[in-house]
Amino acid sequence: MRRSMAGSRNGLGAVLAARSIAIVGASADPRKLGSRPLALLRRHGFEGELYPINPGRSEIDGVRAYPSIEAIGRPVDLALVLTSAEDTIAAVERAIAAGVRGFILYASGFAEHDEAGMRRQAAITRLAREHGVTIVGPNCVGVMNTDTRLCATIASVGEVMTFERGPLSFVSQSGAIGGYWLDKVLQAGLGFSKWITSGNEAGIGMADCIEYLAADPATSVIGLYLEAVRDPVAMRRALTNAARAGKPVLALRSGRSAAGAVATASHTAGLAGDSAICDAFLEQCGVAQVESLSAMVDASRLLMWGPSRAVSRPAVVSVSGGAGALVTDGVAHLGMPLEPFEESVRNAIASALPSFGKADNPLDLTGMVGADPAILGKVLAPIIRSGSHDFVLVFIGLMHGTAKGLVDSLLESAGATGCPLAVIWISAPAFAVDALRRARIPCFEDIPEAIRALGVLNEARAVAARSAGWLDPAPADQPTRMASAALTEYAAHRYVGILEGIAYPAETLVTSASAADVPSRFPLAAKLQSPQVLHKTEVDAVQLGLADAAATGAAVEHLLSIGRSLGVECDGVLLQSMVEHDLQLIVGLRWDPVFGPVLLVGRGGTEVEADRDVALRVLPVGADEIESAIRGLRVGRRLAGSRGRLQADLPALARAIDALCMRFLARRDLAEIEINPLALRLPATLTALDMLVRLTADVRDETSTGAGHGS
Amino acid sequence: MRRSMAGSRNGLGAVLAARSIAIVGASADPRKLGSRPLALLRRHGFEGELYPINPGRSEIDGVRAYPSIEAIGRPVDLALVLTSAEDTIAAVERAIAAGVRGFILYASGFAEHDEAGMRRQAAITRLAREHGVTIVGPNCVGVMNTDTRLCATIASVGEVMTFERGPLSFVSQSGAIGGYWLDKVLQAGLGFSKWITSGNEAGIGMADCIEYLAADPATSVIGLYLEAVRDPVAMRRALTNAARAGKPVLALRSGRSAAGAVATASHTAGLAGDSAICDAFLEQCGVAQVESLSAMVDASRLLMWGPSRAVSRPAVVSVSGGAGALVTDGVAHLGMPLEPFEESVRNAIASALPSFGKADNPLDLTGMVGADPAILGKVLAPIIRSGSHDFVLVFIGLMHGTAKGLVDSLLESAGATGCPLAVIWISAPAFAVDALRRARIPCFEDIPEAIRALGVLNEARAVAARSAGWLDPAPADQPTRMASAALTEYAAHRYVGILEGIAYPAETLVTSASAADVPSRFPLAAKLQSPQVLHKTEVDAVQLGLADAAATGAAVEHLLSIGRSLGVECDGVLLQSMVEHDLQLIVGLRWDPVFGPVLLVGRGGTEVEADRDVALRVLPVGADEIESAIRGLRVGRRLAGSRGRLQADLPALARAIDALCMRFLARRDLAEIEINPLALRLPATLTALDMLVRLTADVRDETSTGAGHGS
Repeated sequence: MRRSMAGSRNGLGAVLAARSIAIVGASADPRKLGSRPLALLRRHGFEGELYPINPGRSEIDGVRAYPSIEAIGRPVDLALVLTSAEDTIAAVERAIAAGVRGFILYASGFAEHDEAGMRRQAAITRLAREHGVTIVGPNCVGVMNTDTRLCATIASVGEVMTFERGPLSFVSQSGAIGGYWLDKVLQAGLGFSKWITSGNEAGIGMADCIEYLAADPATSVIGLYLEAVRDPVAMRRALTNAARAGKPVLALRSGRSAAGAVATASHTAGLAGDSAICDAFLEQCGVAQVESLSAMVDASRLLMWGPSRAVSRPAVVSVSGGAGALVTDGVAHLGMPLEPFEESVRNAIASALPSFGKADNPLDLTGMVGADPAILGKVLAPIIRSGSHDFVLVFIGLMHGTAKGLVDSLLESAGATGCPLAVIWISAPAFAVDALRRARIPCFEDIPEAIRALGVLNEARAVAARSAGWLDPAPADQPTRMASAALTEYAAHRYVGILEGIAYPAETLVTSASAADVPSRFPLAAKLQSPQVLHKTEVDAVQLGLADAAATGAAVEHLLSIGRSLGVECDGVLLQSMVEHDLQLIVGLRWDPVFGPVLLVGRGGTEVEADRDVALRVLPVGADEIESAIRGLRVGRRLAGSRGRLQADLPALARAIDALCMRFLARRDLAEIEINPLALRLPATLTALDMLVRLTADVRDETSTGAGHGS
Repeated sequence: MRRSMAGSRNGLGAVLAARSIAIVGASADPRKLGSRPLALLRRHGFEGELYPINPGRSEIDGVRAYPSIEAIGRPVDLALVLTSAEDTIAAVERAIAAGVRGFILYASGFAEHDEAGMRRQAAITRLAREHGVTIVGPNCVGVMNTDTRLCATIASVGEVMTFERGPLSFVSQSGAIGGYWLDKVLQAGLGFSKWITSGNEAGIGMADCIEYLAADPATSVIGLYLEAVRDPVAMRRALTNAARAGKPVLALRSGRSAAGAVATASHTAGLAGDSAICDAFLEQCGVAQVESLSAMVDASRLLMWGPSRAVSRPAVVSVSGGAGALVTDGVAHLGMPLEPFEESVRNAIASALPSFGKADNPLDLTGMVGADPAILGKVLAPIIRSGSHDFVLVFIGLMHGTAKGLVDSLLESAGATGCPLAVIWISAPAFAVDALRRARIPCFEDIPEAIRALGVLNEARAVAARSAGWLDPAPADQPTRMASAALTEYAAHRYVGILEGIAYPAETLVTSASAADVPSRFPLAAKLQSPQVLHKTEVDAVQLGLADAAATGAAVEHLLSIGRSLGVECDGVLLQSMVEHDLQLIVGLRWDPVFGPVLLVGRGGTEVEADRDVALRVLPVGADEIESAIRGLRVGRRLAGSRGRLQADLPALARAIDALCMRFLARRDLAEIEINPLALRLPATLTALDMLVRLTADVRDETSTGAGHGS
């Protein structure tokens, strides 16, 4: 039976849980990369069988070598292919014939290199699909799994690392960055479970890896280094699984700038500007982006050992008043005020330490703690016992002389139940860092590091609950919709049809100034209708505020003459009753070549570009998510009302926009709809004051399967 | 002759350049804080005379002790006063009588403590003023100066540090944070020059310290830990001196959040919300705020050893393509694109390394550099030689095996002139960090650290040029203007008088509906005029768009009846011709209790609070600075024009606002002016559509000196 690769946990299991490994191209020369996997698998104590393949040798470093994969004569789960790019395909075919189901391909010289490489990579993808085998790479540095002490890598970090188990797993689209992550995680004493460099992703992609880790009992936090989202539908499904399994996903992403995107790889070149969509996509899939690997490690430490729920009522205890204020600023920046201690806590602190002045939150321990480090424990006890705070951040700096006493206080306090604590210790002595690590008390080097980690924790802890309402992504086989030329506004209204919750203005198309059949409600707007004139205001092809029939007639005449002087195809002049409104919004729907259907919603009018205030979402999303996207904008705060001003009916707005999204998804003939301005009369009356529609290129072929695919 | 303290460099010299020091309250018990200054001054080899004062001993640790300050019988420059708060005043008085001109007061128990402490502190301030002596503290941990090996501190960091000279100086309003800075700077091998903890600033304030350091030849970069700006005029003068001396000032500030401000100290409590003014003040004085001491040290390193000018054309060279993309993203975030290498550079790279693929910027050295670290030098040479890049950022990660070769390449390249380079090295081996430090090549632990430092460098390098145009701050003795009740709009127009560049609408005040004398240009706005009704729209006390006399009469009647039903004092109804305009701005002027006269300018209308887009400046500022403040806003981008839209005449706008600022400064009877909306008809026609004016409390007393002071 063939196995599907995408989303198949078992597929990646053929690699990560392999018990027998053939090493094709194993070298006996320690200076060659081909020598590394065998050496590293042995060094780290791999718990299965190893079969180096080298036609020229009978053993390598005391391990029996085989002239070919067929010569092994026993079942092999996984083949590590260390041959050149040119020889890789033949090696894979031969191993498939010998019954191997899992592969890691290390060679470079594939799609990242040249045309021939692209063809080679396509052949690899084909082999994976046709034979249902699992292929990691090519152009990767391998994988590790501490469950089975599998160190199937050519990365030099393998030579200096130790194999410590921990709940963190990492998937990297760069081998080098995979190495840096591993170094930092092991330095921090956190251990790891799975480590996968996905390379060019000819077979297994990042989504497959996340899918696997979401179901992997040994993994509780997933880290990513991400350059390109190659399969957003699979990615979304995998990230949904991770979210529902309560496993936070942290990502370091490159290509956030246009220049950075060009730098990542040729496959994303030309898609500059989509970084905002990628940010929106990751956010809506619950991924917390971090600014560096150090920030990822800091957040992972807090996720492993810190609060199991989002923090809302923190307490701050500091050996320095100044530092306490800085921590307070940081916590406030995350939107958390420091609630004063309850009277019982204040009294308990005062009775434990009669000479102690102010039992405020943040609590300043003053110079007294330098003389008596046990003070720390005495103030922590009542705070933790009270149950009115859900997290304590303790700040310490230097104090090497009294560090032992401070550590004792911390260990004792952390033993108490109910309220997790974390430490910020500037220039801590090494023994203190070690002791806190052994006690699983998160310790950070400075204040911003701790605050950023706390921000990620709160973001990540909210994801699991939120993910219950996430919609299933669209099927993966939806064709890309390439846009054709635009319809005129009048034609667009007729083509798209009546919308749910969004009205068109009362309108008439006229082709001469004498036409009597104008909308009855003045003032009117008059707009030249030409599919060649999209930015009408820029060529003065719009006249507003026409107060009566005479003004309207003159305007029609004028616009028609503009159309003639521009020499454009012209359907006439659209007359619309002007609509009183309180605010202008924009709603746009288009088909992104990478992410598919994308919604843009926000502040509209002529300022969309000068003063950008819009949110993006990759469809499908429900009305709830649309409402929350609007609430996250500046215009959302305005719509939510303040100081007795009329408030928008945000759920009704979101439902109307959601209905438009559904229409867009259902109608494969539509490649783009943009309504700007979308006039809002509070609380929830929406009128499309202008509308741009582009049809899918070659709409007529659209009904036949597979037509309309983009490149 | 009495010396003024504020701004007196010599004043602080009495402390920092002291050659003879009396230690009042010197203890022989090493467990007591009072033992520390003598021990530390000796340990670090202070180059002057030391006179411990202790009535009970004839010597301390081999140094002759004196029973009293008078008993010394020789001139003493500086007294370190280690007595309790209660005994401090008497000790200072006695030392002044004995001819001492400089003091450091260590005891706590002053203004930070209680009422009695506040009185004690006021006495200290009085002593300093009356006798013209220089007093640092109280409640500080002392000062250091590597010029004379002066370690006059009770901070425990003194016991573990070394005295290394360097161009960095630091002023701290927290003793503990002073210690952390010192530890980090010395760990980083940067050395320091002056280190001052200013404590409660009863005498010497932070401004005095900056003034001193701006003129100190040994200082080239100034760091601050800042909780409160106590004397903004002196501070501004000192920061202007530092800017004009080309000395970057970096600040870590606490109290940026309301909760943090409460946490800093009681003297700033109640001023929550002024943090935005403080940010604006520091920005306009050229201070670069940093997020942590580590960020300050990173920026200092780059300022010491990096580019002497702002960077605009950087090159990136990376051992990892992924990391190169991340660096590229960071550089792009600072607004710098990576310009492609010139053809000659590309050719030179290609000829030095024939097998090398793409000579792009960012340059990916690929795995090749692992085999041959000399590649790094071979690519750096032509980039540096070309002169078309002004900075090279080199990224390295791990590579401990080839670190020696990489370091050699870097040292060789840094020797070449013209183009400074910096290194980001994740998990660098210690010897490499050392070697780069000795060669003064800035090295950072990770990408965000380097990017943040580069951002600070570019900000700091622009300050010196900008500072040439800074205005002198207002004299320090300007009384605080406390605001009284507001005038009605009509009264305000008459009271303030005609403005330069800002018109009032054509208007009439009527007291009955029958009044015939209405502005001739319809439509009209009608507004109830009552000093008790400030937010007129909230009580429906405004009617807009009155098209004719009949509508106007009805509106007047209605508004008068609202006034009657509210039971407020009412001057009548103001009728104004409505003014067509393109955009609504806000201009506000008020008197902040800490910073004095403050300008607020930005997007106006009803959205000022829901969608805040305003800039603040502490006056005086010139029209240029006002223009640049507007350009920094989102509304500024709109005003600057785009896509062929009409553009605002920003210099003319700025001149009109500047004239209003001058009026406000000159008219001491004005405590507040707020014009919102300030209607803008492009390009530069401004009309005050509403105006709020508050007079200074007790205006009549204002002309007599010193009246109207706030508390």
